[in-house]
Amino acid sequence: MTAGGEAPRRRSEKSRVAIVGATRKLLMERGFDKLTIEAVAARAGVGKQTIYRWWPSRHALVADVILEDADKILRPVENTSDLEADMCAWALALAGALTTARGNAMLRILTIAGLEHPDTEARLRAGFSAPLHDSVRNRLRAAGFGDVSAQDAADAIVGGIVHAIQMEGRAFPPHRAESLTRMVLAGASAG
Amino acid sequence: MTAGGEAPRRRSEKSRVAIVGATRKLLMERGFDKLTIEAVAARAGVGKQTIYRWWPSRHALVADVILEDADKILRPVENTSDLEADMCAWALALAGALTTARGNAMLRILTIAGLEHPDTEARLRAGFSAPLHDSVRNRLRAAGFGDVSAQDAADAIVGGIVHAIQMEGRAFPPHRAESLTRMVLAGASAG
Repeated sequence: MTAGGEAPRRRSEKSRVAIVGATRKLLMERGFDKLTIEAVAARAGVGKQTIYRWWPSRHALVADVILEDADKILRPVENTSDLEADMCAWALALAGALTTARGNAMLRILTIAGLEHPDTEARLRAGFSAPLHDSVRNRLRAAGFGDVSAQDAADAIVGGIVHAIQMEGRAFPPHRAESLTRMVLAGASAG
Repeated sequence: MTAGGEAPRRRSEKSRVAIVGATRKLLMERGFDKLTIEAVAARAGVGKQTIYRWWPSRHALVADVILEDADKILRPVENTSDLEADMCAWALALAGALTTARGNAMLRILTIAGLEHPDTEARLRAGFSAPLHDSVRNRLRAAGFGDVSAQDAADAIVGGIVHAIQMEGRAFPPHRAESLTRMVLAGASAG
């Protein structure tokens, strides 16, 4: 430790936390379109260069903020051996999380940032979209479904819920996630 | 008509066509994130004020370009009285259209523009997402499904296909749209 000062690593960590926190607040206040590195630097009380030292772009910074919050939305599907009950509970919880003010803003920003920027897309896919999809696929495989059925059902359930919430926003009623899930499971079982 | 000049309406129409054409080219070359009104004005050979006279924002301009091209993607589901064959053909055509270079860029831009800007979202929803969804819903109602089943199935089919293509881009194999559709229809029939 430098005499009379903070250790550099600790100072870095404080800046990093301030930058991520400032980004999170600005995203909720203004959305992604109006988020600039300048505004984040001003709010966090750091220089722009400090931000660019760790993040190559505003997209990369936003991806980190989203991935820090992703565990509020990502969760495995339980396995109580009642597939329909487990999947419906999971679908309801997902729709509930994506229709809170914060979850809905996150979905919106995640979608925009991913579609605008290939590197960010790869990170968000690995850290969010793939695990979301895999939760469903793994539960269906555990219930004895084949790979193709499990993939199609995961596409229909996750895509059906996420896309409807992208379109309808917070007005999407979570019970539709449940009836959609039940329908897809009936189709997967019939195949 | 002014002596020796073009009629104002005709001159306006020429500018409008040049602006829309320049926007379409710049979107394909650079994507939406880097599209500016300045660049469109320079490419179209008009002043920025000419663009702002008709479009309040770059989002509004982009929405017009997308809606002009939407008929390449939107089409009703045929009714040959074989529901599964009609729906599978429609799903394959949709997935095919959204995985061409142009269709995929359009989906990406449409999603970003809609999520960033509420007025644009409302226009794109009325001109694209709602008709896409309604194609499926109307065909299912014609086949005797109730409102709830038709809505859930349309959510699962349209959302399943569109969301997977948002995630996987042009690598999405259209046959997955077909097997997903068949699965959802089996579930809707079982209900």
